Amino acid sequence: MKLVTLLTDFGTADGYVGAMKGVLLRSVPDVRIIDISHDINAFNYRQAAFALLNYAFEYPKDTVHIIVIDPGVGGQRSGLVVETTDHYFIGPDNGVFSFIYQRQKFNAYEIVLSELQSNITSTFHGRDVFAPVASKILSGEDITNFCQPAQHLSSFYSNYEMLDEKQIRLKVLHVDHFGNLIFNFTRADWQELGQPENVQVRINHSFLSGIKETFADVKNQELLLMWDSQDFLQIAQNKGSAAKILRLREGDCIILKLP
Amino acid sequence: MKLVTLLTDFGTADGYVGAMKGVLLRSVPDVRIIDISHDINAFNYRQAAFALLNYAFEYPKDTVHIIVIDPGVGGQRSGLVVETTDHYFIGPDNGVFSFIYQRQKFNAYEIVLSELQSNITSTFHGRDVFAPVASKILSGEDITNFCQPAQHLSSFYSNYEMLDEKQIRLKVLHVDHFGNLIFNFTRADWQELGQPENVQVRINHSFLSGIKETFADVKNQELLLMWDSQDFLQIAQNKGSAAKILRLREGDCIILKLP
Amino acid sequence: MKLVTLLTDFGTADGYVGAMKGVLLRSVPDVRIIDISHDINAFNYRQAAFALLNYAFEYPKDTVHIIVIDPGVGGQRSGLVVETTDHYFIGPDNGVFSFIYQRQKFNAYEIVLSELQSNITSTFHGRDVFAPVASKILSGEDITNFCQPAQHLSSFYSNYEMLDEKQIRLKVLHVDHFGNLIFNFTRADWQELGQPENVQVRINHSFLSGIKETFADVKNQELLLMWDSQDFLQIAQNKGSAAKILRLREGDCIILKLP
Repeated sequence: MKLVTLLTDFGTADGYVGAMKGVLLRSVPDVRIIDISHDINAFNYRQAAFALLNYAFEYPKDTVHIIVIDPGVGGQRSGLVVETTDHYFIGPDNGVFSFIYQRQKFNAYEIVLSELQSNITSTFHGRDVFAPVASKILSGEDITNFCQPAQHLSSFYSNYEMLDEKQIRLKVLHVDHFGNLIFNFTRADWQELGQPENVQVRINHSFLSGIKETFADVKNQELLLMWDSQDFLQIAQNKGSAAKILRLREGDCIILKLP
Repeated sequence: MKLVTLLTDFGTADGYVGAMKGVLLRSVPDVRIIDISHDINAFNYRQAAFALLNYAFEYPKDTVHIIVIDPGVGGQRSGLVVETTDHYFIGPDNGVFSFIYQRQKFNAYEIVLSELQSNITSTFHGRDVFAPVASKILSGEDITNFCQPAQHLSSFYSNYEMLDEKQIRLKVLHVDHFGNLIFNFTRADWQELGQPENVQVRINHSFLSGIKETFADVKNQELLLMWDSQDFLQIAQNKGSAAKILRLREGDCIILKLP
Repeated sequence: MKLVTLLTDFGTADGYVGAMKGVLLRSVPDVRIIDISHDINAFNYRQAAFALLNYAFEYPKDTVHIIVIDPGVGGQRSGLVVETTDHYFIGPDNGVFSFIYQRQKFNAYEIVLSELQSNITSTFHGRDVFAPVASKILSGEDITNFCQPAQHLSSFYSNYEMLDEKQIRLKVLHVDHFGNLIFNFTRADWQELGQPENVQVRINHSFLSGIKETFADVKNQELLLMWDSQDFLQIAQNKGSAAKILRLREGDCIILKLP
């Protein structure tokens, strides 16, 4: 099974994603192409990193994941192939693989452009570099034929901060499609702290207490703390957008009070 | 041919749809996944019900249609498998299958979560319940292994109302992408009334008379009554949006005058 | 390999694209369907023509490209099959194939609706005409069985204008997803003019000079002239939208000064 997934910020209306698919199909006739999204906000590699975590590990062994969010195309940033036990990840080096580095054992390679046969423009490496590299991997070519060990890997993940015994500072990692606010604090982190029941958050005029199981544990329009589908702590609103209510954005901080 | 279609309100940018596809591909390697849409407005099961009618019956026998619009996830609403002569429909019970119940013979089952082997979160039944159930059906497993007969089925369809011999009240079922207003009155309903030629509608300052064959039967920007591609009566504007001009929305009513 | 690509302005949320896919899968069970985009702006065949150029020629031999932007559905416009050496193009005649006519040898055919067995509505030729025609071609049926030679082909492409020896007038062909402004002037045109180095453009308070290699050749937020991925001249902004800054739109003209 030759499976490749595509995640970009290209939108679809310009046909650029269509071009990448054509390159893949021309070089690997039996490839199966799975669209993840082309609606990542322009240049938002942090949003893409979070999305990647949501789907990457659900895929069968040897799936090739292509992720192209590429504000630095044509500049100095390198192109990467990250190989984990089960998957390959291909894309520009800009932090989009932060969660992969954190959660998996991996080998990281830097693509050597001069080893690719294709004609490489300075504006469209999705078509000219990353799709051809995926085709080579899907065809079983040895990565070291067109890559060298990576010298540098960008990452943006930071751990939560312990302010004192009763307070920790959390940062908004991501605001999802429904306006849920997702923080750099996982169920595992919480378990290490002894699973405190009565954690509390106060933001503007809102007060949240305890970590709920599900939306339905609170009334319509009410805010709650809960674990998201990847076991990050999130603030959600039942049938609404927590981000709109609380006016919080990616990068903003809150204080979580421990009992 | 193991064919599954996907309709959700998830958007694609969070990778949640990508996760569902991964689950399907991991369990059924030869599955073919067809994206219908992930742009249904959040929680709008009525919009999804209408879309479903537009595509479901075009598919080959044994296609599995997954539809996840799920404001009630984690709460009391049940998950359904609806089996018709040719197709399977899987998703939460919220009215999204209203037109299926109306137009097809069917058997409806309620998914028994405890019969699924997967780890089920309270927030993401698309990945944890509906994709695994689709995989079981595609793999030929007996539905009764993980389902019981459904006790309750939600539906929102209502027939048009006869006010008197000369007037019937119609409701806007749906506003489509182009701003066409689609009503709960079908070509079959009209034939039962004797196919009256000179039906009339008066809305604000607009007056429509007769049911046209096609957009080109009126001038640019002009409004018209016509049959939509599913034989529902619609008000459309040639090269424009009837919904914007008339300021009508889903659920609004109009009076159709008979001659 | 039976490969079909889909480009429309239907959006996905109404299920119309889903219906076209169902028709294809029902008639050609081993067809492989590739989504290009369904987010073309409503009725914008010029945007679609440009997108088409970006992907069409990347595809394997015998790929069938379906393009449905169709404001004239149900009226007098004809439906076309355009056959080039390697590909088939199917869709309504409205100029969407302008670049194909310009860059490839082709035979153009007009679809004869009465030769199709399907029930043809006046509103949805994507499902009732173009998908069935694609199925016939994918199944190896002779085009002349359901087509006749085309009498008329719409095109909107115009060459740049030479005002005098020092000035040429260019038109905005297209504004892409990132706000890049793409003009009717190609690298080949420039080479014919002797590859002048110091071309200049003055728009409002902005002054651009020389054709750069890549975004990274200028500072953040700065504007530049460069070749796009199809070798059209474009004005871009490094990490921003040139269209927003310059307030230019499709169809607007600028003067390029030669040295």
